[in-house]
Amino acid sequence: MFQSFDSTGDPSVGKPRVALLRQWLSDNGLDGFIVPRADEHQGEYVAARSERLKWLTGFSGSAGVAIVLAESAYVFVDGRYTLQVRDQVDLGIFTIESLVDNPPSVWTKENLAKGARLGFDPWLHTMAEVKALSAAAEKAGAVLVPLAQNPIDAIWQDQPEAPLAKVEIHPETFAGELAKDKLKRLAAAIAKDGATHAILTDPSSLAWSFNIRGGDVPHTPLALGFAILAADGSHTVFLDKRKLGRTQEAYLTQLADIKAPAELESAVAALAQSGAKIALDPVLAADRLRALIEDNGGTVVAAPDPARLPRATKNSAEIAGARAAHRRDGAAVAKLLCWLDRQEPGKVDEIAVVTKLEECRRITGEETQMPLRDVSFDTISGAGPNGAIMHYRVSRATSRVLGDGELFLLDSGAQYQDGTTDITRTVPVGKPSEEMRERFTLVLKGLIAISTARFPAGARGCDIDVLARIALWKRGLDFAHGTGHGVGSYLAVHEGPQRIAKTGMEKLLAGMILSNEPGYYKPGHYGIRLENLILVTRPDDLPSGDIAMHGFETLTLAPFDQRLLRTDLLTRDELDWLNAYHARVLVEIGPMLDGETLAWLEKATKPIR
Amino acid sequence: MFQSFDSTGDPSVGKPRVALLRQWLSDNGLDGFIVPRADEHQGEYVAARSERLKWLTGFSGSAGVAIVLAESAYVFVDGRYTLQVRDQVDLGIFTIESLVDNPPSVWTKENLAKGARLGFDPWLHTMAEVKALSAAAEKAGAVLVPLAQNPIDAIWQDQPEAPLAKVEIHPETFAGELAKDKLKRLAAAIAKDGATHAILTDPSSLAWSFNIRGGDVPHTPLALGFAILAADGSHTVFLDKRKLGRTQEAYLTQLADIKAPAELESAVAALAQSGAKIALDPVLAADRLRALIEDNGGTVVAAPDPARLPRATKNSAEIAGARAAHRRDGAAVAKLLCWLDRQEPGKVDEIAVVTKLEECRRITGEETQMPLRDVSFDTISGAGPNGAIMHYRVSRATSRVLGDGELFLLDSGAQYQDGTTDITRTVPVGKPSEEMRERFTLVLKGLIAISTARFPAGARGCDIDVLARIALWKRGLDFAHGTGHGVGSYLAVHEGPQRIAKTGMEKLLAGMILSNEPGYYKPGHYGIRLENLILVTRPDDLPSGDIAMHGFETLTLAPFDQRLLRTDLLTRDELDWLNAYHARVLVEIGPMLDGETLAWLEKATKPIR
Repeated sequence: MFQSFDSTGDPSVGKPRVALLRQWLSDNGLDGFIVPRADEHQGEYVAARSERLKWLTGFSGSAGVAIVLAESAYVFVDGRYTLQVRDQVDLGIFTIESLVDNPPSVWTKENLAKGARLGFDPWLHTMAEVKALSAAAEKAGAVLVPLAQNPIDAIWQDQPEAPLAKVEIHPETFAGELAKDKLKRLAAAIAKDGATHAILTDPSSLAWSFNIRGGDVPHTPLALGFAILAADGSHTVFLDKRKLGRTQEAYLTQLADIKAPAELESAVAALAQSGAKIALDPVLAADRLRALIEDNGGTVVAAPDPARLPRATKNSAEIAGARAAHRRDGAAVAKLLCWLDRQEPGKVDEIAVVTKLEECRRITGEETQMPLRDVSFDTISGAGPNGAIMHYRVSRATSRVLGDGELFLLDSGAQYQDGTTDITRTVPVGKPSEEMRERFTLVLKGLIAISTARFPAGARGCDIDVLARIALWKRGLDFAHGTGHGVGSYLAVHEGPQRIAKTGMEKLLAGMILSNEPGYYKPGHYGIRLENLILVTRPDDLPSGDIAMHGFETLTLAPFDQRLLRTDLLTRDELDWLNAYHARVLVEIGPMLDGETLAWLEKATKPIR
Repeated sequence: MFQSFDSTGDPSVGKPRVALLRQWLSDNGLDGFIVPRADEHQGEYVAARSERLKWLTGFSGSAGVAIVLAESAYVFVDGRYTLQVRDQVDLGIFTIESLVDNPPSVWTKENLAKGARLGFDPWLHTMAEVKALSAAAEKAGAVLVPLAQNPIDAIWQDQPEAPLAKVEIHPETFAGELAKDKLKRLAAAIAKDGATHAILTDPSSLAWSFNIRGGDVPHTPLALGFAILAADGSHTVFLDKRKLGRTQEAYLTQLADIKAPAELESAVAALAQSGAKIALDPVLAADRLRALIEDNGGTVVAAPDPARLPRATKNSAEIAGARAAHRRDGAAVAKLLCWLDRQEPGKVDEIAVVTKLEECRRITGEETQMPLRDVSFDTISGAGPNGAIMHYRVSRATSRVLGDGELFLLDSGAQYQDGTTDITRTVPVGKPSEEMRERFTLVLKGLIAISTARFPAGARGCDIDVLARIALWKRGLDFAHGTGHGVGSYLAVHEGPQRIAKTGMEKLLAGMILSNEPGYYKPGHYGIRLENLILVTRPDDLPSGDIAMHGFETLTLAPFDQRLLRTDLLTRDELDWLNAYHARVLVEIGPMLDGETLAWLEKATKPIR
């Protein structure tokens, strides 16, 4: 299994570890320390060695911060984790704060004592974060102190080593462009930004630029490392050589010098001393890098990671890979849904479904000679009220049997070498209520509205987000998350910069892959989410139109459960879309199925009316 | 008539007047001067005295800037005026630049000579503008010089005097709140902004706060003037006393000291010297005020005009007034449309329609004892290709006969004491083409989508704009203007801050009135625009909803031409809305009509299918 069902997080760890930390702080003349969940690379997943927040507090969520002072300690979490954190941390030690309403950059201003010295590890906070935190500390009359050593690393006796997963070359068949050509484009972009160099701190950018993949963190095929790209083409990669086989080392050596990560600081300092203008992405790069450059006489050029947009706009090989991955993944999901349909209500639990789904993906991957490399995130398998918990992670402690009359929400994804998938379907267990059917249909209307949207060049995610919501809004309903996130190509399942959300200010460009996942959640009762991945298509003239329009091609291929549909709420156009989609699902994944599963799919995709 | 059909703008004026200006600049050691269209109040309409741009260049548009240098001169206009400006100015004297792609704040950076001294009148530019212009001039190595006297005023021999239209008290029946209560609210808001005073520079804010109306500029019932409001309630109005009758002076004296506009500078300077913290709206207030305050030791508090949001969110009396005004105005428009329907194609021209429409409004106003006070803007009356010119103003030179097979677009509004209206209808002359009918229906779908939208608290205009466009986008079509602007209550027909547009970042609050006016324009052929005013309704729970939702109440009451409708393109819900709207139009304005007009309305509002 690529995921576990252990209950992680243990509230008993906090007390002794906080005591150790306080001793260290006192020995080092500090009044407090701030512990983010992030590592040096600011990704969604971190290696075991970097789980400092969890080690210190017991809290295992994917976002959060702790601040430990001499007499008090705080854990900041967002709305997803307000319940979970109370189970996982010792509330006698930690006070819970909101990461959204009262984040550290606000909290600090109002709660830090005058003259207090708050330590932080400048490798674990971005430039933008440190700027906000420093301003807040200053207003409180306190001071932020960058530390040369992370105190957690000093007191964590059995801290794991940095990961050393093997690096593999991502073949041109899937990448669609040679690394040397990508690097040429990036060098030109760096010069255009007015810089001599750029530091890639995001391992997704390292992976994309050099066409490599790794396995240093869960669920995303990343090799943790950095690169300094130069406008003149003399690049350096900072990566532990133990991750490289002979072939991989020979390959990378053609593209760049290879140095150990420990050499990054001295390399940046030397560049800065030579007067380099070094581009850093303020929302990605560690503040340590900014300080190194500025302290050594170099110039920091604030510019977005140059690999960000090229990586987001997939080329034709990546698009072909995505289509193939989605056919394969759709067949696997159809097998699961068919199996699920045969189970009696009250017989299987959430974990059993996750296990079966991974088996379906494994088998389908083997049959198609494109094995499942990983799941792209921990499967969200929520029956009844668990479905209303937006980022639910099933554990043995919480796993619920799928009961009669309940809804079951299944949000999962896969990593194949040709593409990353992410799909959510919601199905009834036994007979659904009229309310469930109404709200399922409203959510589906939102998904169809995004699927069928067309938009002129320059439209951003925020410009179309409402299309996913208006049917719900008209009935006084909404969902409290964005409509869609960017998705990588055999990379991170949550990849920027594109989003469909009120905050999605990035233009939607041809080749971008996004999720389309409206939902509805009735806390304590049920959750509904429907999710397809969609590809921004190149503009083409519509018959009789004035303007070349972009649109979306739906990549995900699996039926929507017709038992939850109220067709009287659909317009003719919406029904036509649904029938055409189901016909396409049958044509595209039918050939990968047979027997009972094929019969099930034929029934599940039968045209309505 | 409240509007004229004269061809304004005369290209012959530019040469001698630019020569005079250059002489003045040379005498005063300046290399150039910048001439905005704005007056001291930054409104859409200016008094004749302030038409400096038109006097100098011949250009009569409602937005534009000129820059005159020793050897060259430029007029900056936006897309609405690129054709008109070429007819109105001497192209041997002036080069035309884009106010959007290359505005003065960009142009200056790239075109001003090093060391050049560019004069400007600091009363005619906002703080934000001067900030941008200064930064640009600095980059060019040039300097912006604020002038104590406007050079145009120095050389314009027969410049009109400042207007002296009589001020009237806006009765509580229509205002819905006594001025003294409004002023108390404003004083509290000023204190909350951390200021001791605020200067109202927008005459709409002066009018709203003191419940007065005037007649100093066309089409908007404003009395030009300023006010200094104090957090402690000691207010001063700067207004020429000759505009006040005895009653009005006695009324205003109860609320504030009254001083002459010429005393504003010394009053502000004195306040600043006493250490006042004075709030100015950076996008409304003249930079002169900022300089006065800062030069005299006071503090400028940058804050939005405190009257802006209270004015935008109409109270129940203003809403009742708006409803009555729209019934009356709808009846007048119905009379016009009925009359127009009886005209043979090729018989009437655009001016005849404008004249007839004003007559219909006058008569209906008299019949209902609420006379037409003004039109709220120059009527846009566009037949055939003229309809595709978004901000077309008909003159005797351009007036076109409404020809067979053409579309006719009529966008007009009225000022009544109980409310301001703005309505657009598009009608066929003779038999319309299939393409016209298709596109009319797509535009109507956009109007219906906005009309029926519901949205949670906090939604902004930009969050819903796409609803007006998506039907067009799906056919490769769009319109190049916002979907809606704010509308005042017997005040400006274009009133901020609310908008429905990609740039509409202001929350939609209950009581705001907006236009809902999607369109489609086929240059050289025809234009379609459909416009209703809508009111943001207070949130109320929908049956079975989770969240209290805002929505819109449609205020405008006049039929949409069914001959242009392709009902097969409408959904059942859209058709239901249209039939219900038409039924309401008949019920609400029918009682004000009789005979032929009532019969026409009954037919025009007949339910479909």
